[in-house]
Amino acid sequence: MALTLYWGSGSPYSWRVLLALEHKGLTYDSQLLHFDKQEHQSPQMLKLNPRGRMPVLKDGEYVVFESVAVLYYLDQKYPQAPIFGASAEEAGVIMRVICEFQAYAEPAVARIVQAIFTDQVAGEIDALTDAMHVVAREARTIEGRLAKEQWIVGASYSATDMVIFPWIQLLRRALDRAAAAELGARFLPMERNYPALARWIQRIEALPGYERTVPPHWREP
Amino acid sequence: MALTLYWGSGSPYSWRVLLALEHKGLTYDSQLLHFDKQEHQSPQMLKLNPRGRMPVLKDGEYVVFESVAVLYYLDQKYPQAPIFGASAEEAGVIMRVICEFQAYAEPAVARIVQAIFTDQVAGEIDALTDAMHVVAREARTIEGRLAKEQWIVGASYSATDMVIFPWIQLLRRALDRAAAAELGARFLPMERNYPALARWIQRIEALPGYERTVPPHWREP
Repeated sequence: MALTLYWGSGSPYSWRVLLALEHKGLTYDSQLLHFDKQEHQSPQMLKLNPRGRMPVLKDGEYVVFESVAVLYYLDQKYPQAPIFGASAEEAGVIMRVICEFQAYAEPAVARIVQAIFTDQVAGEIDALTDAMHVVAREARTIEGRLAKEQWIVGASYSATDMVIFPWIQLLRRALDRAAAAELGARFLPMERNYPALARWIQRIEALPGYERTVPPHWREP
Repeated sequence: MALTLYWGSGSPYSWRVLLALEHKGLTYDSQLLHFDKQEHQSPQMLKLNPRGRMPVLKDGEYVVFESVAVLYYLDQKYPQAPIFGASAEEAGVIMRVICEFQAYAEPAVARIVQAIFTDQVAGEIDALTDAMHVVAREARTIEGRLAKEQWIVGASYSATDMVIFPWIQLLRRALDRAAAAELGARFLPMERNYPALARWIQRIEALPGYERTVPPHWREP
């Protein structure tokens, strides 16, 4: 079957799927849509996903969206290089840590990143400081896991790493901005504050095919 | 292995897991914890789940929490009566509709239920009316699915039904209160406004073992 991925540059949800496709060594037609031209809201895309959200994966005539569901479909359909564990026990932990990230960390990370990229930091500083405390607490838990193992769950790169990694990269990029200096003071540099997380980022950045997953607009000068 | 479920009465997350255990015909030790006595925050429970949240499943020495992860573990470990689909394609849709429910419906439903049960309706009426619009739109999409099939995804009772059903029951129970009459006017009675959803509720209520999953405090006069 021919795989086509419709995705957006800088969308952490899209990035997850790119990481999975590269990890599994699957050949895919990469369709980068431009949010600024509203390409994700075109009639053709709304036919695939009525919510007009990215990523959307087509596999022949089959269509799936919502990033975690896409990862899950890919793993069921193309089980080589499994990303949801080698046993029921491991599968349970992988899904558990994904659920925890989505429930307890993602809303805070998303809020911080959004505020920084839209220049709203000064006006929301109290709420953003609270959000940074949430992020720091969740990051410490992940740091603890990575201090013991190479990957967030156990000895293999899994869907959990793919779900969390893009948000960490977005967060680093956002906190690097001058306007976020105060907010990021106890988070950056990660090499000092979260050394195991920093090594994990380097490990993912060194994976084959990683360069193809990096948001294209991040490469522009 | 001996299965033990730690759960709370009226927790929709706990209810999901009870539905799965009954559907799979598994024998389990049912440990009902009392939120009002803070039993879910006891040292013993915090050792199992540091967040002190329900449900928590123990299977011998193995521990898993976060309701969707518990469903997933159970299905991997006890594959009879599968709840995550019979093919990769079906698995993708099941997970996709779960993710959609969690991302787009659950926050609104939870807010409405919480406000009604804590007598905050009058003070938040504008935000709650907006939330009801979101819920109505998502319910219409599910209604459309159930008008064509017996279950939310395809021909079999699946994890998607188990994830969504408890929230619908909580919402009905909340909207039935006098203080919520205005809020629920276009939602209830479901038999008129969402006839396929109403039939689906009856179908689940008729399943073997269903009675054991109903929140105990709902049975009190």
